[in-house]
Amino acid sequence: MNTFITLSDEVRTAREEKKPVVALESTIISHGMPYPQNVQTARDVEQIIRDQGAVPATIALLDGQIKIGLSDEELDILARSEDVAKASRKDLPYLAAAGKHGATTVAATMICAAMADIPVFVTGGIGGVHRGAEYSMDISADLEELARTNVAVICSGAKSILDLGLTMEYLETKGVPVMGYKTEQLPAFFTRSSDYPVHFRVDEAEEAAATLHAKWGMNMEGGAVIANPIPGEYAMDEEVISGVIEEAVQEAGNLGITGKDVTPFLLQKIQESTGGQSLDANIALVKSNAEVGAAIAVSLNKKQS
Amino acid sequence: MNTFITLSDEVRTAREEKKPVVALESTIISHGMPYPQNVQTARDVEQIIRDQGAVPATIALLDGQIKIGLSDEELDILARSEDVAKASRKDLPYLAAAGKHGATTVAATMICAAMADIPVFVTGGIGGVHRGAEYSMDISADLEELARTNVAVICSGAKSILDLGLTMEYLETKGVPVMGYKTEQLPAFFTRSSDYPVHFRVDEAEEAAATLHAKWGMNMEGGAVIANPIPGEYAMDEEVISGVIEEAVQEAGNLGITGKDVTPFLLQKIQESTGGQSLDANIALVKSNAEVGAAIAVSLNKKQS
Amino acid sequence: MNTFITLSDEVRTAREEKKPVVALESTIISHGMPYPQNVQTARDVEQIIRDQGAVPATIALLDGQIKIGLSDEELDILARSEDVAKASRKDLPYLAAAGKHGATTVAATMICAAMADIPVFVTGGIGGVHRGAEYSMDISADLEELARTNVAVICSGAKSILDLGLTMEYLETKGVPVMGYKTEQLPAFFTRSSDYPVHFRVDEAEEAAATLHAKWGMNMEGGAVIANPIPGEYAMDEEVISGVIEEAVQEAGNLGITGKDVTPFLLQKIQESTGGQSLDANIALVKSNAEVGAAIAVSLNKKQS
Ligand SMILES: [Mn+2]
Ligand SMILES: [Mn+2]
Ligand SMILES: [Mn+2]
Repeated sequence: MNTFITLSDEVRTAREEKKPVVALESTIISHGMPYPQNVQTARDVEQIIRDQGAVPATIALLDGQIKIGLSDEELDILARSEDVAKASRKDLPYLAAAGKHGATTVAATMICAAMADIPVFVTGGIGGVHRGAEYSMDISADLEELARTNVAVICSGAKSILDLGLTMEYLETKGVPVMGYKTEQLPAFFTRSSDYPVHFRVDEAEEAAATLHAKWGMNMEGGAVIANPIPGEYAMDEEVISGVIEEAVQEAGNLGITGKDVTPFLLQKIQESTGGQSLDANIALVKSNAEVGAAIAVSLNKKQS
Repeated sequence: MNTFITLSDEVRTAREEKKPVVALESTIISHGMPYPQNVQTARDVEQIIRDQGAVPATIALLDGQIKIGLSDEELDILARSEDVAKASRKDLPYLAAAGKHGATTVAATMICAAMADIPVFVTGGIGGVHRGAEYSMDISADLEELARTNVAVICSGAKSILDLGLTMEYLETKGVPVMGYKTEQLPAFFTRSSDYPVHFRVDEAEEAAATLHAKWGMNMEGGAVIANPIPGEYAMDEEVISGVIEEAVQEAGNLGITGKDVTPFLLQKIQESTGGQSLDANIALVKSNAEVGAAIAVSLNKKQS
Repeated sequence: MNTFITLSDEVRTAREEKKPVVALESTIISHGMPYPQNVQTARDVEQIIRDQGAVPATIALLDGQIKIGLSDEELDILARSEDVAKASRKDLPYLAAAGKHGATTVAATMICAAMADIPVFVTGGIGGVHRGAEYSMDISADLEELARTNVAVICSGAKSILDLGLTMEYLETKGVPVMGYKTEQLPAFFTRSSDYPVHFRVDEAEEAAATLHAKWGMNMEGGAVIANPIPGEYAMDEEVISGVIEEAVQEAGNLGITGKDVTPFLLQKIQESTGGQSLDANIALVKSNAEVGAAIAVSLNKKQS
């Protein structure tokens, strides 16, 4: 480990006792949900992981220090401060040097988790190849991170404002395994499925853990995606959501919104159209992913010891 | 080495005695040729390598174990079983964990060869950037593997159903050297040349070996391509083959075939149009590549000892 | 270090005494400027670096040997010989094995600097994503090198014949930090700004050094860009230069110039249109970058000792 990292007492003890640890990101706290739902969800998710026999490690930058595991005070700073930068791979070194706060994206959380030797990370959804990336080259750094950093990401797929087909092509080219948890279809965040097959279906946490164990046991660099569909009772109707997105894409076109402005515009339109339902869905899927991720971490930990 | 790998006696002895070893892939056996030509070709190619003073190591997954060097029984399983998955980078960990059979692609064979410290690998042709990849992002994982894994691939270029120009751009961006063996033009599998120049012409196995020795001696990560044109007597006429491809591309368009379905469609059309000739050509070029690859392995082995 | 590298006495002594060293590339000498301005500029730049308390290390291949630091005789060979290849990542191993001369590009200079443990490198401008790369996939190997090799590049941005927007997207996807030195805008070589924001503004060499120190202290692989705008008195008018480029792009279209022939055509048109001004500008910006780069190297060296 290096001087830029601080482990919480809970995480340090877990590591000393070789207990399974599950990393959690902080963008969802700072930029993904309103206060106080963000703090409440973060603590609920941590508790779900503890209930499964693993130890949660929420990751963020505070005053330039990479925190692996947050105290109540630290979580509160992160959840309420206006001055928390979004930290992806390109941002971590500057924010650390400048002593800033940062909420870690999927890519940056993977980096920090790997620094602390935590191989399992739970989040809502990963970034991907944006619609129109053939022209804009707007491709999330999350995908490159999956190609290089040894951390498995348990998520509910990627939001369908992205181009899921191109995202799967990119991951195939980079050799990143995408496993569907009890599904053959890539889930699309708010919906349980999409038009795209995953590479493999796994029906038990143990199967996913065995695959990770084999990958890293062979010294094959890089991560993996375990895609767990949103619980059925919270899933949105596929036609409704794709109708909303199509409409928003068209509206963006009419308003002359292009390039990097498109994604925030689409996300806001979806939120407006789906109201409170999208927040409830987001919370439900993260909790479900925490359960699956903790089970995978427990299983992987047994194999590694 | 790791517990997922088993070396055959021949390969283990060769490595102990520091003899040159040449890796061979198994997709050509399971998915590239019909039985019994596939078994016969595999054994003929191995013998050519032995005749040049090197030791062949055909690579495949059997019951989840990575085999470096196959016995007659193992080769037969691979050649005849209906239940052999195509194994690329993304697939290796799952197939290993699930205890499945797998025929390794160029990318996966490179990975397994590198695990067993075999720096030279002979195959028919590499994957590349697909026609239309500007939109489909359909790019073979072989190219990323060449960028990262220290194995040289001796082949007859890439099939002209791919976009060879974009493939060369991709390799240049990734810094992968492409050497032409006694040629200045990139060969296109069934034909001896294409519109695209290689980066360097080499006229002796020793020149290629010296380049590899320099590359890895400088700790420059990644592989290299040594492109050896199909023997003249088996080469197809460039106009005939590009006519066939153009026609097939058009037919695919008319039939509404898009995306990932295009490549298998094109390959089948070529096979139909060229009949037995394409199988003979495929066998001839692999044998020729084996001869060149073995000579490079012998030369490189001398430099490394 | 490896047998393919030779350090000059000045550089070897500097390294033994743990003094800061600044790498310099040689493409600008062999292919970027006419004789004798190229030799004069190279020596002037080296002196600027010495005046700042650092040691210059101009990098090139001579007779296949990687030279870190050039004597007067060696610089003269490089500056006058007709037989100096342009050496990027894909070229280094072959040129070394074949015993050739080579002028190192940004990518290759980064590789050689990293071999010699020199973390700071000064140049004029980096390569990038070419205009039309959505179709041509013409993307400089410099960008991939920035993603993988631990060397900071101090430059004046990238020439506006490139697609600067796509270049920034590519660097973001790869997680490469782009810092603006006393600016929030990406400079565009001949001009002080562009339409694209950098990731972070730094106002002191120490800030850039602290970011690099954090990045590598966290074991985050890859380089960084520190973009220092051309001195105001040498900057060209943004409208003039973009007018020249637009015109040249149109002319290339009319003449049917496509693919890899476009860039040299555009560069020559710019040179014709801007005459001696572009050479003066080029010299001025490299000198300014040397000053900034040396200050960063001095600051980083203090942090590392
Ligand atoms: Mn983006
Ligand atoms: Mn593909
Ligand atoms: Mn190029």
